[in-house]
Amino acid sequence: MTSSALLTDHYELTMLSAALRDGTADRRCVFEVFARRLPTGRRYGVVAGTGRLIDLIESFRFGPEEIEFLSSRGIVDEATAAWLAKYRFSGEVEGYAEGELFFPGSPILTVSGTFAECVVLETLILSVLNHDSAIAAAAARMVTAARGRAVIEMGSRRTQEESAVAAARAAYLAGFAFTSNLEAGRRYGIPTTGTAAHAFTLLHDSEQAAFASQVATLGKQTTLLVDTYDIAQGIRNAIAVAGADLRAVRIDSGDLSVLASESRALLDSLGATDTQIVVSGDLDEYAIAALAAEPVDVYGAGTAVVVGSGAPTAGLVYKLVEVDGRPVVKRSENKGTVGGRKTAVRRHKPTGTATEEIVVSLGTPEAKPHDRALQRPLLRGGERVADLPTLAESREHLRQCLISIPWEGLKLSAGDPAVPVIVTGGSA
Amino acid sequence: MTSSALLTDHYELTMLSAALRDGTADRRCVFEVFARRLPTGRRYGVVAGTGRLIDLIESFRFGPEEIEFLSSRGIVDEATAAWLAKYRFSGEVEGYAEGELFFPGSPILTVSGTFAECVVLETLILSVLNHDSAIAAAAARMVTAARGRAVIEMGSRRTQEESAVAAARAAYLAGFAFTSNLEAGRRYGIPTTGTAAHAFTLLHDSEQAAFASQVATLGKQTTLLVDTYDIAQGIRNAIAVAGADLRAVRIDSGDLSVLASESRALLDSLGATDTQIVVSGDLDEYAIAALAAEPVDVYGAGTAVVVGSGAPTAGLVYKLVEVDGRPVVKRSENKGTVGGRKTAVRRHKPTGTATEEIVVSLGTPEAKPHDRALQRPLLRGGERVADLPTLAESREHLRQCLISIPWEGLKLSAGDPAVPVIVTGGSA
Repeated sequence: MTSSALLTDHYELTMLSAALRDGTADRRCVFEVFARRLPTGRRYGVVAGTGRLIDLIESFRFGPEEIEFLSSRGIVDEATAAWLAKYRFSGEVEGYAEGELFFPGSPILTVSGTFAECVVLETLILSVLNHDSAIAAAAARMVTAARGRAVIEMGSRRTQEESAVAAARAAYLAGFAFTSNLEAGRRYGIPTTGTAAHAFTLLHDSEQAAFASQVATLGKQTTLLVDTYDIAQGIRNAIAVAGADLRAVRIDSGDLSVLASESRALLDSLGATDTQIVVSGDLDEYAIAALAAEPVDVYGAGTAVVVGSGAPTAGLVYKLVEVDGRPVVKRSENKGTVGGRKTAVRRHKPTGTATEEIVVSLGTPEAKPHDRALQRPLLRGGERVADLPTLAESREHLRQCLISIPWEGLKLSAGDPAVPVIVTGGSA
Repeated sequence: MTSSALLTDHYELTMLSAALRDGTADRRCVFEVFARRLPTGRRYGVVAGTGRLIDLIESFRFGPEEIEFLSSRGIVDEATAAWLAKYRFSGEVEGYAEGELFFPGSPILTVSGTFAECVVLETLILSVLNHDSAIAAAAARMVTAARGRAVIEMGSRRTQEESAVAAARAAYLAGFAFTSNLEAGRRYGIPTTGTAAHAFTLLHDSEQAAFASQVATLGKQTTLLVDTYDIAQGIRNAIAVAGADLRAVRIDSGDLSVLASESRALLDSLGATDTQIVVSGDLDEYAIAALAAEPVDVYGAGTAVVVGSGAPTAGLVYKLVEVDGRPVVKRSENKGTVGGRKTAVRRHKPTGTATEEIVVSLGTPEAKPHDRALQRPLLRGGERVADLPTLAESREHLRQCLISIPWEGLKLSAGDPAVPVIVTGGSA
């Protein structure tokens, strides 16, 4: 893996230079990642990106090329360059599990160590968590709206090429069944899928010729795209070519609710009662929900999921909350921020429904039955802990978390956070 | 550079497999990239990402690792794997210059070659252009709103870590003066800047101590962040420490229009009449415009620019328009799409103001005085042409383009595209 060290804001290194010079660089610091608010109307956030982040922190090393760039541009002095050359994060990171829900004020990641070693990670940490959490939250809403039907992520073309890979991962975490993105398949083991675009039909002399070619290569367990010319004729052509045991047809345009019903009736009349219907085309969580009563088997979601469906970034910030054991907080605005390292538990009814999240600064929440501690070690002494969850485990964790919140929390409509966070103690 | 070959949708390779088997893979094809519409209310789009895309097409090779993944997953058969192992794009790419404006229907990129070699590039091409063009368009509006004042891109933390680098490049293309992103500095030579965050002040025993440390390391030609505690006191501390020849102070919170005026008056009263005021904090093009009358010297833009200020993707599509010289078009929807390879010119008044864009399918627009041809070769026989513009040249090109459109086109308010596109000819 190439170095992630320059995925960093310039000011982190100027702060580092000054702190090394004035002797504050080694002060013990605690930084916390949290959101002051959720995107407008959203009822929960989803922690995502942690697994990627751990890898990127490990590759956060300043090699000769990075040092040469920084020195030649005058961004760092010699002493700072020497320090960076030896840099390796040696502190502690703990955080909410990937796939955990969060709410305004949840301390989802806590980074502690010297000021110097922690401050340079700010941009990387926020870039990963802000992006991936935004996608995962949008994707989770789509999965809820799909009510058990499979959802395929196919939005790579609508976002930056590396964001596309991260977005596929976040969507899978949130319960999507497949991605179209091959690199996500290779890098993260996510199941990939895809069959053909309209171009494939247009390439051929007829739609039947295109379908016959696809079936000859991919077999009948494939999905034929039937809306290049006329959908009804496309379905007839599909069944004529593949037979009634064709796996699926896909419709990518038009009024999907009407087309799904008509297509189902036509497929059934042709004896293709088990042939599934895949729909795609600018689907977001609301469009998916609106198709709940229609005979749709699989949804394909593209643009909306990869851009966070109206909330392309999660609003997470990385704030210094403690210096040498002393809580600190920015005072110029009354943002309600509380200094000091925080400990968080989620409180539940005996039935398992979450009721509130208790966050205590410089202390420990009073223990109650059905509490669940939310923070877990991720890096100890700079080394990843042994039992980090797999992506599949994080996916299951999110599924369980979504079951645990009050049912109003799963509504797509705008509302308050599903679980209130009570932050106490630790004023600076 | 690592291979970009798996930044691709699964279906491109299944189409390839089928086309190789049925003999259509070698049909000569033309694909075009265009937008059916601009984001709601936007008056122009900005072509961005072309320079990055050319590099990525060159690294689009299937090495042993890529082939192994595809084969082991059963995504491609042996014949396709063998074809991919030898893949190298050998066709032609022409397009609008990076930094050129576009409107609905503008054929901003034309890719021609065999079906097989062109179809596999779809996702990569769209990922790069959709992202970078979205950012550049938002950034260009911010630059216009800033009316000659410098704008700094500082949004890396709000977008995926590699998107951040691409976003910095797109913002610079659009006229931003600096970025905070160090990798963008290294990779693209973009000027970087940054000084300190609130954490640096909180780290120290007092604001004065923090300022003194920063000035000791960075000199008086630095920017002191004055809003950690009390802004007026922060400004007094800044001048007390650095003297009246301090380069700048930065305010990152609060009502910036009031604070800018008050800060200017205070700085002047302290004799710091040349000390600049930098403002930041959730600035978008509207917030920047609203500060036009205030004594602000530099704007810092973060979240809004890197997420496209409400339009995070440019809506560009990659459509097959010609097969073996025959125009083709998808018929199931009346999207007004015209088949066939297109040639585009922009028509101007003698004064230089653009009046319309003429796009002719399967032909050449009638030549008129003050026409400007919009398409330029980028790759010939798969090789980059010799005279590709530098990022600085593309930046200047956009600046000139923005001067050339009717003045209404620069308004921030919602409106029609600044230049109408007339598409004629070539029905399938």
